[in-house]
Amino acid sequence: MKIKSSLLIAFAFILNTNCFSQTNDSLTIRRFYNEALTNGKAYDWLDFLSNRIGGRISGSREAANAVKWSETMLNSLKVDRVFKQQCMVPHWVRGAKEKAYIIKGDKKTEVPVCALGGSIATPKGGLTADVVEIKTWDELKKMGEQNLLKGKIVFFNMPWDQTKINTFEAYGKAVEPRGAGARRAAPYGAVGVVVRSAGSAHDDNPHTGAMGYSDTITKIPCCAISTNAADLLSRTLMLRSLPPAKFSFTQNCVLLPDTPSFNVIGEIKGSEHPEEIIVFGGHLDSWDTGKGASDDGAGVVQGMEVLNLFKTLGIQPKRTIRCVLFMNEENGGKGGKAYADEALKNNEKHIAAIESDAGGFVPRGFGFEGDSVKIAKIRSWKKLFEQYNLYAWDGEGGGSDIGHLKNQCPVLIGLSPDSQRYFDIHHTPADTFDKVNRRELELGAASIGALVYLISEYGL
Amino acid sequence: MKIKSSLLIAFAFILNTNCFSQTNDSLTIRRFYNEALTNGKAYDWLDFLSNRIGGRISGSREAANAVKWSETMLNSLKVDRVFKQQCMVPHWVRGAKEKAYIIKGDKKTEVPVCALGGSIATPKGGLTADVVEIKTWDELKKMGEQNLLKGKIVFFNMPWDQTKINTFEAYGKAVEPRGAGARRAAPYGAVGVVVRSAGSAHDDNPHTGAMGYSDTITKIPCCAISTNAADLLSRTLMLRSLPPAKFSFTQNCVLLPDTPSFNVIGEIKGSEHPEEIIVFGGHLDSWDTGKGASDDGAGVVQGMEVLNLFKTLGIQPKRTIRCVLFMNEENGGKGGKAYADEALKNNEKHIAAIESDAGGFVPRGFGFEGDSVKIAKIRSWKKLFEQYNLYAWDGEGGGSDIGHLKNQCPVLIGLSPDSQRYFDIHHTPADTFDKVNRRELELGAASIGALVYLISEYGL
Repeated sequence: MKIKSSLLIAFAFILNTNCFSQTNDSLTIRRFYNEALTNGKAYDWLDFLSNRIGGRISGSREAANAVKWSETMLNSLKVDRVFKQQCMVPHWVRGAKEKAYIIKGDKKTEVPVCALGGSIATPKGGLTADVVEIKTWDELKKMGEQNLLKGKIVFFNMPWDQTKINTFEAYGKAVEPRGAGARRAAPYGAVGVVVRSAGSAHDDNPHTGAMGYSDTITKIPCCAISTNAADLLSRTLMLRSLPPAKFSFTQNCVLLPDTPSFNVIGEIKGSEHPEEIIVFGGHLDSWDTGKGASDDGAGVVQGMEVLNLFKTLGIQPKRTIRCVLFMNEENGGKGGKAYADEALKNNEKHIAAIESDAGGFVPRGFGFEGDSVKIAKIRSWKKLFEQYNLYAWDGEGGGSDIGHLKNQCPVLIGLSPDSQRYFDIHHTPADTFDKVNRRELELGAASIGALVYLISEYGL
Repeated sequence: MKIKSSLLIAFAFILNTNCFSQTNDSLTIRRFYNEALTNGKAYDWLDFLSNRIGGRISGSREAANAVKWSETMLNSLKVDRVFKQQCMVPHWVRGAKEKAYIIKGDKKTEVPVCALGGSIATPKGGLTADVVEIKTWDELKKMGEQNLLKGKIVFFNMPWDQTKINTFEAYGKAVEPRGAGARRAAPYGAVGVVVRSAGSAHDDNPHTGAMGYSDTITKIPCCAISTNAADLLSRTLMLRSLPPAKFSFTQNCVLLPDTPSFNVIGEIKGSEHPEEIIVFGGHLDSWDTGKGASDDGAGVVQGMEVLNLFKTLGIQPKRTIRCVLFMNEENGGKGGKAYADEALKNNEKHIAAIESDAGGFVPRGFGFEGDSVKIAKIRSWKKLFEQYNLYAWDGEGGGSDIGHLKNQCPVLIGLSPDSQRYFDIHHTPADTFDKVNRRELELGAASIGALVYLISEYGL
């Protein structure tokens, strides 16, 4: 009896303490959201980054401006340390605007395209050739082996799967030809590649993005065509009347020598375990055709906002929290790699990394990858976030910048914003400030801030 | 032993049947989503309704066009029955665009305002008077009783609570002066009212909306001012320099005699219980300053889409399903009332009503009001919707049109789209087609369709 009742008391005590800390945590988390929603700086910062600095591809003047500006902003927050980390980045330049035509007999229809990042230029005066439409990799192989692609422009028209609820799943599939189309078509003698834009909307915006060559395979020029124009090209190819349709495109891009650039980092030292580091942020660079508001201005200003919230609320983290604004996520990942290399060299102990690189849309939850026990601990906090509508904690996560930390950091976390709108604008001229909603952006920042707070408070 | 094992078998059988029907339901629901996301008509319909017909306040030519168009569209779906239901609606006309100024000494600053729906006009040449800023109803009472409002324009500057995660909560509070400001200020001798727009954004768009007079209280003109201009007016009033700030506004609105209009209704008869009716839809009318895309073109086309999905998928509902496009939700609710009156007269048995009138944004779940046992049955289906990210089933729901059915229908249900963006554009010129995302709109339609399917299949 005695044992039982003291056990009961002990149990009640544990329960109480637990309730107390849960209540306290709940109140602290509420402060993050209240402050972000009423006085947050992220939206004004994003306005500046998108509209005043603009699209900022690695190596560009705009990217350099973004480095300077973000360093200045982080300094203005009076955090413990602001510093830059150099990395060499590719310097690909688009040049004069691309032109493209579908040619059927006498009829020449101009269509919207853009060079894929990393592509070579077409010959002066453009590249004009018969087109072969390809809908699967198998088809490419079959036609290639039958020698049907020699001298042709290969048109990868792999559709977007609209039935995927999480649009990142559709993207993962649809984007394959963008990355690998040129190097897989060239061995069959193709002279150029045009890929259907990896996007969810039916519209006239071509979606750029990184493509990759292989050193041992002939480099052929590669562009993306808008989804509407891809449909038009496909319909034109279906016409049986002679002569067969041709495609013509001109692009003027060039790859200059690598150039130095920087990650920009701000940190608040932990009061109890300064050696344990929690990283969060997004990437400073963007594509050049839009303003890089959703990809990834949003992640950048949300990372900055997290530091701002800790400072404004006067919350001293027990562990070191570090906002990293990575350079060159889009076409090289050199910033992510440089950060991980430096961390390894300095023998830094990272306990968690959180990336926001999926748009500044309303947050739905977090995705995780890494140590399952530690992830389970984080997931046990889910209840604290439900009143902010963050229900989705089961998915996989991480991100391409923090992915470089895979072997140095037990848990990688990705913020999961709602994905419906992202691939309408991703890598297009429509990636502009007006697509981002202030409250949605700030809810994301507060969500990251609250999670960083819990990890910094309790460790993993 | 024998009993036990047969019990076990029976149990296993029940379990199996249950699993089987859950699996079947899950597959059917998937068909609703797949069809909506790939071949849905809602987005193109909304394009027409917003961009070709436009804003459609009750009594307007546009509202009449919307009636004709939606009847034609419903007929094109080849459902069992399409019909209209007459109702008399208020016919308030805005007239020439409003003008307003903040006047401080020699300085006259033009600011964006709009007349509230139902307001009287100002005197010819406008109304100019000293302004008194009011931030709470208590303050109004106190100042009124001290005779400080006599001859003044009362400026209701009650702020928007940005900390509410569900923006409808903030709206519910912030919108009070819009509805009641004029009739509560007039008894104290106020000559006009200007209310801060009930919106979440800091911008230059005034938010219109219905206001109400009382027959026994002097009618004074009433306008809404944009949130930015409300801040400017407040700052100007804080300046202590003489002379005190004045506010001046001119509006030319007029209330014409009531005019006939219509609800538009399409239905598919139930195969097993045709007498049990499930209603769903939105409202056809909108405010005149924008295009009524989010409020409530979205709800209209989602309702139409539900019928379209049943027809296209070849799904015969066991109970009667009825899409109702209500007239006059915004400034009278006459359509909602006419529908409920008619249903009562015809002794119709409604088992559930679902309204979509909270924007066409990404669905988060459903809210409910009514019979708790029946609601519990619906909530037991929640699991089927989680893969579509509909996690929120705990909230209250319903809607103002189906609200008239309260005593005739045991369960009222509101679709709950994400609320962050809605009150940036609600009742403003920014309520346009481009704010609605195709996939989000269709996800909402499919969600209603799937819920209608389950209710039609199992009853309540």
